[in-house]
Amino acid sequence: MISDEQHIVSAYDRELESIQALVMKMGGLVEAAILDGARALETRDLELADKVRRGDRTIDELEERINEECARTIALRAPVSADLRVLLTVFRLSGSLERVGDYAKNMAKRTSVLAEMRPIQGADAATRRMAREVQLMLKDTLDAYIRRDAQLAEDVRQRDHDIDQMYNALFREFLTFMMEDPRNITACMHLLFIAKNVERMGDLVTNMAEQVIYLVTGTMPEDTRPKGDETSFMGAEDEDD
Amino acid sequence: MISDEQHIVSAYDRELESIQALVMKMGGLVEAAILDGARALETRDLELADKVRRGDRTIDELEERINEECARTIALRAPVSADLRVLLTVFRLSGSLERVGDYAKNMAKRTSVLAEMRPIQGADAATRRMAREVQLMLKDTLDAYIRRDAQLAEDVRQRDHDIDQMYNALFREFLTFMMEDPRNITACMHLLFIAKNVERMGDLVTNMAEQVIYLVTGTMPEDTRPKGDETSFMGAEDEDD
Repeated sequence: MISDEQHIVSAYDRELESIQALVMKMGGLVEAAILDGARALETRDLELADKVRRGDRTIDELEERINEECARTIALRAPVSADLRVLLTVFRLSGSLERVGDYAKNMAKRTSVLAEMRPIQGADAATRRMAREVQLMLKDTLDAYIRRDAQLAEDVRQRDHDIDQMYNALFREFLTFMMEDPRNITACMHLLFIAKNVERMGDLVTNMAEQVIYLVTGTMPEDTRPKGDETSFMGAEDEDD
Repeated sequence: MISDEQHIVSAYDRELESIQALVMKMGGLVEAAILDGARALETRDLELADKVRRGDRTIDELEERINEECARTIALRAPVSADLRVLLTVFRLSGSLERVGDYAKNMAKRTSVLAEMRPIQGADAATRRMAREVQLMLKDTLDAYIRRDAQLAEDVRQRDHDIDQMYNALFREFLTFMMEDPRNITACMHLLFIAKNVERMGDLVTNMAEQVIYLVTGTMPEDTRPKGDETSFMGAEDEDD
């Protein structure tokens, strides 16, 4: 005969599994938004850009649902410390996913503006490559979460450095284009914001990976990760060459 | 004689009060970082900028401590639904505060770069006015939280529209400066990122105000708030005039 406690435990497990399934669904939608957003930008596909913008509502709704179910499960089950940590991690992961989704939406918004301007050589392809890297980082972070794989999460964390380097190179390139021809300024501004947003997506995914490491190991990784956007420190002499 | 339950309830109240005191302390530091960051930018005060950068560590540490104490209280006290909602709100507020602090730090970082460039007429003062508005919004949001004042939080929410308008005006101005003289481009790029970051601070504070409304009324405000950054939609013709 099954005891009451076992009944409760398995109900809790089912709830947790269903919440995790929602997070994975949300993660999948955000991954698609990153890729579609970058592809829409590169091909100036306004229909696809519009799909990304409309799709953000579903992502936002999923976040709210995940948060509600987390809160409900905590309130109903009063989970022990380890389980509570999982739920609070989910709470944070869904918050970060929502913000990554917002950046993808913003990329799609700017695409409709950029479609009316003359293209900047190579910028869209470089941005898409950057976005593709971030999407892969996100995929690995979600895998690391499900498999409780701190090593994979640490790997993601290290890869953020590549994103930062790609962004710094683009920053320099856009400045050069603007200096060469003032007619490039408006387009470059939008492209620069997009590139910066992709860099921020990388930061958010890196934070998510750190949450996973904390969940698995119980300690936050040491801050040995090379720090992000160097352009805040760039003097004119660095950026003009 | 005091019952065991009363003992537990008052211990919980004390814990909650101590967590809320930490949030207020964190909020005060973030308010100061916004004001100091903007003042350092305007006066090119590198010492003050450096103070803001170093101060961000304290803000980050407070966030971690708040999160730990929230998690511990939830785990130990298994609070009822209403109390749990307060703790989860605190969890979110501290996360938003930490991000506002990051933007202030970024403003301070860029100040040291900008100090080496020629000033852009009026830009720093306009940015400081915007930052001042955001700081007041934050102050009112924290007051609204403590007093459980949904009306004040709603007021903050409406004021975000002013921040967006200030940002849109600055965006146009910077583009004009860049077009007029390519030697302004690098400085304007940094100023534009700073202005965008202040606009994002406003968005974060608005989200915090919405969390307070949700905490007090139990429902999220309707999405009637005028939407943020119009520049994502601006065509060249809008921005060039």
